[in-house]
Amino acid sequence: MADYEPNMVLATKAYNVVGTRPIRHDGTDKVTGAAKYGADFNPARLLHGKVLRSPHAHAKIKSIDTSVAEALPGVKAVVTSKDFPLSYDDPELKVDLGESVVGLKFLKDNVLAGDKALYKGHAVAAVAASSPNVAEEAVSLIKVDYEVLPSVLTAPEAAEPKAPLLHSSLRTEELGQRNGKVSNVAKRFRHSLGDVEKGFTESDVVVEREFNTKTVHQGYIEPQAAVAFWNQDGRLSIWCSTQGTFVVRDTVSEMLKVPVSQIRVVPMEIGGGFGGKITVYLEPLAALLSRKAGAPVKLVMSRNEVFEGTGPTPGSYIKLKMGATKEGKIVAGKAYIAYEAGAFPGSPIDAGAQCLFACYDIPNMEIEGIDVVVNKPKTAAYRAPGATNTAFAAETVIDELAEKLGIDPVDLRLNNASKEGTRRADGPIHRRIGVVEVMEAIRDHPHWKAPLEGPSRGRGMAVGFWFNIGLPSSCTISVTKDGAVNLVEGNPDIGGTRTSIAMQAAEVLGLRAEDVHPTVVDTDLIGFTGLTAGSRTTFATGWAAYEAAQDVKRQMINRASEIWDVDPETIELKDGEFRSVADPELKISFKDLAGRLNDSGGPIMGRATIDPKGVGGSASGCIVDVEVDPETGKVDILRVTSFQDAGKAVHPSYVEGQMQGGSVQGIGWGLNEEYFYDDAGEMTNGSFLDYRMPTSLDLPMIDTVIIEVANPGHPYGVRGVGESSIISPPAALANAIYRAVGVRMNVLPMNPGAVLEARWGKEAADSSDK
Amino acid sequence: MADYEPNMVLATKAYNVVGTRPIRHDGTDKVTGAAKYGADFNPARLLHGKVLRSPHAHAKIKSIDTSVAEALPGVKAVVTSKDFPLSYDDPELKVDLGESVVGLKFLKDNVLAGDKALYKGHAVAAVAASSPNVAEEAVSLIKVDYEVLPSVLTAPEAAEPKAPLLHSSLRTEELGQRNGKVSNVAKRFRHSLGDVEKGFTESDVVVEREFNTKTVHQGYIEPQAAVAFWNQDGRLSIWCSTQGTFVVRDTVSEMLKVPVSQIRVVPMEIGGGFGGKITVYLEPLAALLSRKAGAPVKLVMSRNEVFEGTGPTPGSYIKLKMGATKEGKIVAGKAYIAYEAGAFPGSPIDAGAQCLFACYDIPNMEIEGIDVVVNKPKTAAYRAPGATNTAFAAETVIDELAEKLGIDPVDLRLNNASKEGTRRADGPIHRRIGVVEVMEAIRDHPHWKAPLEGPSRGRGMAVGFWFNIGLPSSCTISVTKDGAVNLVEGNPDIGGTRTSIAMQAAEVLGLRAEDVHPTVVDTDLIGFTGLTAGSRTTFATGWAAYEAAQDVKRQMINRASEIWDVDPETIELKDGEFRSVADPELKISFKDLAGRLNDSGGPIMGRATIDPKGVGGSASGCIVDVEVDPETGKVDILRVTSFQDAGKAVHPSYVEGQMQGGSVQGIGWGLNEEYFYDDAGEMTNGSFLDYRMPTSLDLPMIDTVIIEVANPGHPYGVRGVGESSIISPPAALANAIYRAVGVRMNVLPMNPGAVLEARWGKEAADSSDK
Repeated sequence: MADYEPNMVLATKAYNVVGTRPIRHDGTDKVTGAAKYGADFNPARLLHGKVLRSPHAHAKIKSIDTSVAEALPGVKAVVTSKDFPLSYDDPELKVDLGESVVGLKFLKDNVLAGDKALYKGHAVAAVAASSPNVAEEAVSLIKVDYEVLPSVLTAPEAAEPKAPLLHSSLRTEELGQRNGKVSNVAKRFRHSLGDVEKGFTESDVVVEREFNTKTVHQGYIEPQAAVAFWNQDGRLSIWCSTQGTFVVRDTVSEMLKVPVSQIRVVPMEIGGGFGGKITVYLEPLAALLSRKAGAPVKLVMSRNEVFEGTGPTPGSYIKLKMGATKEGKIVAGKAYIAYEAGAFPGSPIDAGAQCLFACYDIPNMEIEGIDVVVNKPKTAAYRAPGATNTAFAAETVIDELAEKLGIDPVDLRLNNASKEGTRRADGPIHRRIGVVEVMEAIRDHPHWKAPLEGPSRGRGMAVGFWFNIGLPSSCTISVTKDGAVNLVEGNPDIGGTRTSIAMQAAEVLGLRAEDVHPTVVDTDLIGFTGLTAGSRTTFATGWAAYEAAQDVKRQMINRASEIWDVDPETIELKDGEFRSVADPELKISFKDLAGRLNDSGGPIMGRATIDPKGVGGSASGCIVDVEVDPETGKVDILRVTSFQDAGKAVHPSYVEGQMQGGSVQGIGWGLNEEYFYDDAGEMTNGSFLDYRMPTSLDLPMIDTVIIEVANPGHPYGVRGVGESSIISPPAALANAIYRAVGVRMNVLPMNPGAVLEARWGKEAADSSDK
Repeated sequence: MADYEPNMVLATKAYNVVGTRPIRHDGTDKVTGAAKYGADFNPARLLHGKVLRSPHAHAKIKSIDTSVAEALPGVKAVVTSKDFPLSYDDPELKVDLGESVVGLKFLKDNVLAGDKALYKGHAVAAVAASSPNVAEEAVSLIKVDYEVLPSVLTAPEAAEPKAPLLHSSLRTEELGQRNGKVSNVAKRFRHSLGDVEKGFTESDVVVEREFNTKTVHQGYIEPQAAVAFWNQDGRLSIWCSTQGTFVVRDTVSEMLKVPVSQIRVVPMEIGGGFGGKITVYLEPLAALLSRKAGAPVKLVMSRNEVFEGTGPTPGSYIKLKMGATKEGKIVAGKAYIAYEAGAFPGSPIDAGAQCLFACYDIPNMEIEGIDVVVNKPKTAAYRAPGATNTAFAAETVIDELAEKLGIDPVDLRLNNASKEGTRRADGPIHRRIGVVEVMEAIRDHPHWKAPLEGPSRGRGMAVGFWFNIGLPSSCTISVTKDGAVNLVEGNPDIGGTRTSIAMQAAEVLGLRAEDVHPTVVDTDLIGFTGLTAGSRTTFATGWAAYEAAQDVKRQMINRASEIWDVDPETIELKDGEFRSVADPELKISFKDLAGRLNDSGGPIMGRATIDPKGVGGSASGCIVDVEVDPETGKVDILRVTSFQDAGKAVHPSYVEGQMQGGSVQGIGWGLNEEYFYDDAGEMTNGSFLDYRMPTSLDLPMIDTVIIEVANPGHPYGVRGVGESSIISPPAALANAIYRAVGVRMNVLPMNPGAVLEARWGKEAADSSDK
């Protein structure tokens, strides 16, 4: 890797369309403002809703009096928890959110508080009225009698036996059983491989550290928005900004006891999600309000509601101990991890545990974890959910191990890298993955070798791994008579997947990407399609498009065979032309055959429904150069290079965009972002002015290196690229800060105050050493 | 048929769903006003358009000055004929409208006049502006310099050698050639079978009569409306009230030189069409205006514009001679028919000729026809286009033959009825048809035998035949986990076809009609689908739904076979349950299997694209009782019974609706409706106040008898029922009037004036006979 370019693709195999960079199909609509987002749908007779939210972090709801609100002129409906059809107390009632399965009662209680408000901002009631102003006034007229209770905000505190209890009947789930006393610990698990204590005995060097990370939010630019219309014939239509129309359909179906076939969910364009737009918040409320009011109802969140009323990613406590031999073999890894679930069970701690040691082949491992409810919003997925927390711990501890062993940190990682066949701490065995290739690309990259001079400057690196997911997808393709095709799919397009899916169909059919016109449709118009999450869309729905295109190709070949009266087996599609292998005179272009379909037997449509099994995880990593202001503790980022195994980058520009976006979010998480709570459990920085996300002024251009280690489980080797690149930046930053100013950071965010505190701590320790 | 019921179904075969009467899927939206029709689409930044129309029936357009209009504040675009991309002078450029193929230049010149305005109301220019008022003012500011020319309004006059010529280069097409002098006769043809003169020699009775019918309009309740948005990326979207989204797509593609794959046509709900919403009028104008203005543009017609600027059905001149032996065998039929094409070639005269003798097996036939351009709006299809005109002639002449022969008119018809194998005048041979069965049902019906007493009362009957059409259709079906299915199709639903299509899928899958949720989608979301016309939709798209359901069924069986590990050949779907024929223990309901799809291999979608060949024509007929006011000539309708061969009535209520609606339109055409022209060629009754359509006050409830002679060319025997019932009423009314007051009517409409004139003529003839 001698020549340096800002964006590099270390490509495996070349295709005609896959791997090129066509203009995205939705580009014009998005740059001209024609695209319609969640709040842009305004049907006739639309009513406007508003949600009343708890001002207390923890309170018993003794009564709700909606009578004054209901009497206000212009108010059409008021709903509270009582308007849900049933009690949902059966703990077996669960909803499959695609990435996770969630208990229905808790999901419902999160949408609208039952007997308790469990966090500041918890929805308590909702109003639909003739205007947003009337709705807002009506909300202020609802009288809620609260009995304020003590709150608890962190996992370690909430796990204490004497902590205030959030739920009166929650018992700890362990090995599939709920036993023991009522507790805030929703779940406890232990993964074990080898003999970890023996591993530490064999270790020449052992490092053990504790880490604390804060609650952070995905920070998507578009707040949640939903319009629902519950028709008099019982059919419910919902227009919303969501990552998964079928998830919304299935969840609302369970929650409101309406068959899925009676519900249509229409995807509006989505202004970011990052995992935060999977869980439903507004959709069931808008539906209940619509049923009561007999008209469509729109609910749109404010930014403050997004922070306080949706699902951030958890704060966490992690204690990690790793041991290595002096030859540089990591032989033991032991972790205790505690994640804040938020007000209801279900943090992404499982994935956090699975990813903790996933990059490494370690013979002895043990991970114990607890999922703990606290008086904060119920957590949700956020880009490689759970993995960034644990990687912050693992990748800084390994950096320290390398230092103590006197081994280059990349070399130590390469010495111990996971490969195909490596067993993970939680049991499964890795398929073909690109951990080694990513580490090698980092090692060989000019950035890693470039000089970095000047005081208080340092360079760090770290790696990460994300498993990605599969799930079913559907796709149809229709041939148009001018030789193009229309493609129909069901994945809300967050990062350019219309195009990356269309390109895979184009490749099969010998067309240009521009000849495939993709449309993302509602749940009535396409077969079940899993959500846009888990880096699955280009992988799974792209594969469905591939199969639908194969279905088209087969039919086109059959048609040519009928026209020519030859065996279809002897016809191939090559360079945009159907050709008889037997008779070179027999050939017809895709376009010409498309033009003849209606006169030779009828039109052609392809369809595919798949449930792909060959999911391929994506390794990633980054190198960061920082300069730390010794006076203020502020960390400036000088240079970032992001590395990721895409399997195959279908549209490299979008892969680069995902890598850059993921890196920026990792940097924000690492340096600045946090929910800042006061003693009463109230978030005090719930606006984009106070919740400090990185802006372009805070960052250099982020260079990217796409590594392609083909996923054998996908026709084009695609793995999925949406998440992995968020994982490594916080750890890489910590490692860089260490090299810049000599302090090992063990908290996120590593904001100026935290860096200064660490430095003061180190100075104190150093001086006491003297 | 001893027992009388107002609505009878003479059914062939019973099915579970096909033949039942479920509630229509779009019912709630339509009765609550939630359904969106052509004019109901209001995107952001919408501009409003208005069309300038010629005040002259025939004029040279010497110049158009749009500068003052363009300078008016709020005006965003003005277009004239010059804004079309090319000259289109190549006579080979044709557009397939599904039911007919039309020359592109004429089609374009009809949308916006070129060098001549050819009828009063002919579009000359169009404006897009910030409001409808500004657009209207702008239109008034366009200065057109006309040179008014003499006009000609009827086919016989326009066919005269000295008639004013509409087109400078139109020569008569004959046997596929355009020869001779420039003429208003666009086409001349002759069909001949046997030796017609020999036939007349063999006849004992010969009747020869001349007939004249007037221009009438379909009178759909919803005026034409279209919104177009020509995006900056070149993609053109059109939302409109149309019978054929793919026709609009293909026509606009040819007219504006945009590939079909760049055009999306979105079907709004349609408030009636009857053939009149196939041709494009507003769509290309809205598109051109949108391209110029850079924003969406809406055009909506007024009722007067609908009358003067769309496509009515032709006025006609028919001379018909038929001969029969005294045994009641019709042995000769000879016709000369001249149809008004309107301003451009292409009346439905071909179908009129094909249907003229279609109900009868006559050994010697000759039909000569001419299609003649006149200074009226270009004609369009209207429910069994062309057939009503000729049936008026044929069915009154046969009535007169029967009278002269002393044979019951039904018996004479039955003596000579067409059957499977009968050769038509234009050559083809009838497949299995229900002409005999319809005639027998009339003969046996209590209405035909009921006494009709009182002065000036009479009963008449007549029959008709319409061929129906096929054309390609596409359909997809997705299974939902609650055991229902979502169906996607591309036919605008005029008469309940969502439901009649869904029912055919339900039948295959053992579901209820309510378990199938149909959606009519735009041209981007489904394979090519022919227009909603020619009575084809329930036949052809219903068949596509049948095939798509078979595709679902096959996949469901395969899934069950995988779950059970048995041969799929041994599994059947019966009574909503998949069962192993081999092992009675192995069974699973459709619903339960649907719920397991995602966990057993993925979702299931079916798709079908077909080009059905087994089109089955529909015979029809009616009995009418009238009372004629001897003083005024006004005809009151006492009783009507309509008969039609549905093949299979998928949803009998909708078949009855089609029969009743067709009968009413036939009655309106027969008694009241006409374009009334002044000497300058201006329609003087272009409003619903003056253009006299029948209302419920004018009519009794129309009884129906559905005859089912299964069409062997369709899985459920469907023929298609949308058109045939309009054909016979005018002739049946004439025959009834004859029996009431003794005059043979030979003009349409048979309004009070016409009846009085006929009576005065008869009195004069009677008195001169004395």
